[in-house]
Amino acid sequence: MADNLSSVITVDTVNPAFKRIDYPIRGPLSLRCSEIVEELSQGIKKPFDKVIQHVGDPQGLQGQKPITFVRQVFSLLMCPEILMSDPRFPQDVKNRVKEILSHKTGNTMSSYTSSQGLLVIRKHIAEYMFKRDGYPSDPSNIFMTNGGSVAIQIVMSALRTGMDGDKREGFMCPIPQYSLYAAKILEQNSYMIPYYLDEDNDWQLNIDGLKKALDDARPYCIPRALVLINPGNPTGQVFSYKAIQEAIKFCHENRLVLFADEVYQENIYTDEFPFYSCKKVLHDMGHEYKDLQLISLHCSAKGYIGECCCRGAYFELHGFDKETKGLFLNKLTMSACPNIYLKVAMSLMCKPPQPGEESYDLFIKERDTILESLRQKAVMTTNILNSLPGIKCNKVTGAMYAFPRIILPPKAINEAKRLGVEPDYFYVSNILENTGIFVVHGSGFGQKEGTSHFRITIIPPLEETTLMFDRFNKFHQEFISKYS
Amino acid sequence: MADNLSSVITVDTVNPAFKRIDYPIRGPLSLRCSEIVEELSQGIKKPFDKVIQHVGDPQGLQGQKPITFVRQVFSLLMCPEILMSDPRFPQDVKNRVKEILSHKTGNTMSSYTSSQGLLVIRKHIAEYMFKRDGYPSDPSNIFMTNGGSVAIQIVMSALRTGMDGDKREGFMCPIPQYSLYAAKILEQNSYMIPYYLDEDNDWQLNIDGLKKALDDARPYCIPRALVLINPGNPTGQVFSYKAIQEAIKFCHENRLVLFADEVYQENIYTDEFPFYSCKKVLHDMGHEYKDLQLISLHCSAKGYIGECCCRGAYFELHGFDKETKGLFLNKLTMSACPNIYLKVAMSLMCKPPQPGEESYDLFIKERDTILESLRQKAVMTTNILNSLPGIKCNKVTGAMYAFPRIILPPKAINEAKRLGVEPDYFYVSNILENTGIFVVHGSGFGQKEGTSHFRITIIPPLEETTLMFDRFNKFHQEFISKYS
Repeated sequence: MADNLSSVITVDTVNPAFKRIDYPIRGPLSLRCSEIVEELSQGIKKPFDKVIQHVGDPQGLQGQKPITFVRQVFSLLMCPEILMSDPRFPQDVKNRVKEILSHKTGNTMSSYTSSQGLLVIRKHIAEYMFKRDGYPSDPSNIFMTNGGSVAIQIVMSALRTGMDGDKREGFMCPIPQYSLYAAKILEQNSYMIPYYLDEDNDWQLNIDGLKKALDDARPYCIPRALVLINPGNPTGQVFSYKAIQEAIKFCHENRLVLFADEVYQENIYTDEFPFYSCKKVLHDMGHEYKDLQLISLHCSAKGYIGECCCRGAYFELHGFDKETKGLFLNKLTMSACPNIYLKVAMSLMCKPPQPGEESYDLFIKERDTILESLRQKAVMTTNILNSLPGIKCNKVTGAMYAFPRIILPPKAINEAKRLGVEPDYFYVSNILENTGIFVVHGSGFGQKEGTSHFRITIIPPLEETTLMFDRFNKFHQEFISKYS
Repeated sequence: MADNLSSVITVDTVNPAFKRIDYPIRGPLSLRCSEIVEELSQGIKKPFDKVIQHVGDPQGLQGQKPITFVRQVFSLLMCPEILMSDPRFPQDVKNRVKEILSHKTGNTMSSYTSSQGLLVIRKHIAEYMFKRDGYPSDPSNIFMTNGGSVAIQIVMSALRTGMDGDKREGFMCPIPQYSLYAAKILEQNSYMIPYYLDEDNDWQLNIDGLKKALDDARPYCIPRALVLINPGNPTGQVFSYKAIQEAIKFCHENRLVLFADEVYQENIYTDEFPFYSCKKVLHDMGHEYKDLQLISLHCSAKGYIGECCCRGAYFELHGFDKETKGLFLNKLTMSACPNIYLKVAMSLMCKPPQPGEESYDLFIKERDTILESLRQKAVMTTNILNSLPGIKCNKVTGAMYAFPRIILPPKAINEAKRLGVEPDYFYVSNILENTGIFVVHGSGFGQKEGTSHFRITIIPPLEETTLMFDRFNKFHQEFISKYS
């Protein structure tokens, strides 16, 4: 459009930050996947009849059933006039709706709330963390946001120095990592300090690696925060208690904020690696560490709830003074307030039905069915992947993902180079076109130079998993022999 | 907390942008108002027994009833298993739920959608604009966001130059204005080019004023866009067709993007000033102007729907090339996708029940009752205000607000100066403490140097309006005589 003299905003003049954003999970391969779905629906012939998308969308893509209690509260909240007397809705559903409405201005779900989120629901969240950790939580430290992605963006924006060049802020981020961190760093022109998770040790922390990464980065930035994703995305590991202790000590020694992305904390699959929140470990470590600044993130899109599209999330500030917390609120006022549904989702996640309540038994049954199924699929996914030639996969102990390493033949690597793409991008785009299975290339999350990986979810229904791996296995063998 | 050596992030080190934000609508007076509500509920004695908040929250604060069709679709969408066969839900409600779910992955409201919003709902929006303007609209130009406030922030961010100093971007904003624009300009360190609406001419545009404002600002910035708020917030005027034509010509001549904030387009109260969208006028003006870049904003919080807390909004890009639109999408991918409820709210607003459908008659009755009541209150509010000594108020022809001018006695102005606040802030905080009526000070929206105003809504229930103005009148007379 260079010939269009009247355009003010073009790719040449738009905010350059918009051009720096690179978010592979919703990138070109994801768009191609949507095209293929469309092509199939138009009757275009493919070597497969169905697309299987490996993104963390448990109800949409993998057939996970919603929690009945959650949906009933949502539904009743919208039409209390019609449904409050409906005997099909249990009494505890009605009580929750009454409780929430009684705290909303005008007794209606339509009204605006505090920009930080409805106080009664922040109290539910605080009680949840108290039960989890054994340490009290203050609702004034809790900020609800429109999805975990918005929370990440607000927090990373808050930690900017406001200066450019060598004085810009540095964020220590795991490699591999959930790629929104890298995207946000690119957008706001911060400095990324990559630290490598230890693939040979089930993707655990390598504390010496952390130290070296920080030392190497010091000349180029003001290090501000360490991002810890636990359980890991895309790596599917749960950090040990000791690893979290070490991370806390490291942040304390080096005056870093600890940003704990704990959105998968309900997705835990082994007794060997239970979930410990950074906040609990920090408190366990006693007085010396009590002033460490910790920001913890949680959301309602994952776990057993899996309500992705109501965008429920919160972050909790620990160790921030009142005035600084006021500035976070200042920022949030600009978006007026979080939507009502995300607030309700957080209430339901943090305060599910209790023993003795009408919905309790069904809730426990639904929750345990989902978590048990995920546990089985975590084992199955790892086992099958490790049985394939040239693929090696760490045990999935948490979250919803496996991140297997693939040894690609040199011919395949050369072909990728010729096409100007990363080898694992070449590999996964071949998977997509040939099998309809959409997995994300490892280079989209970061990985050690010269290695190749992909991220696959453990969440497709059990009955589809075998079939899917048959298709995948066939493809993989053909791909390897084609390029050997 | 200067003595707290281990804090990394304090008011001194937090992103300075967070400190620049100043958003008076949710500022200290709003917090004080919440405190008073709390104090009343604790039984603390006040010269009033109820707070009346004048913010644009029609259902929460002013008792506006929800549209039944809207709530029924929401409710059914959550629990189709239970409610799809329920005879209390009309057939057109069921059909809409089926339509929406059939376009969602996994046939569930839980699943993620395109970051731009569900295509079928963008089609509903496009049809709505086509019916309104008589010109076609393309769903690929429509971007749904989590509330109008987020849309404003994304658009204003997109228009940055990415440079500081004299090369930073300038935004022409009306004075008075909805203060989020000023807040965003402060946050992102853009340059504000204020243009004054003509109070002596019912807050219409003054095109000579626009020209002068732009000329004065040229040395200090790269002017990027003209923000036009129509109907006006806080000024309650609807722009004439001619005013919009002039604004378009002005943007075309000066190579500015026109950013049309049209969130109050359904709130129109006189035949003399109907609503014309900037997009319609632009198309009416023919070929010469067709390439003008226009961004139009609409939302579901106002109008007759008034669903504030589902945060439904969209912006439409006109005259942007495909690649540049892709960069807007790039930015939106970072928040994954808009929540499902806001998308549904936009569908219901843009495609309400049609003649012959089961919900149609009730919908029309509810809609017309709300709009007729607003029309009456618009007249009443202006009349009462103009009957008070020292208050002069332009006719409210649209939106939900009046912005009367008050002549404050010099003693009151001196007292405000002594307290270090703006005179109108002093005046409205006295209103709040003495009457429980929360209106926003004019200086929060901008006004001509030396004048004082306040923003009052026209939306409290008719039966409360008389009583409220009695209280207000009594206060006003006492205030004036106290300081005369």
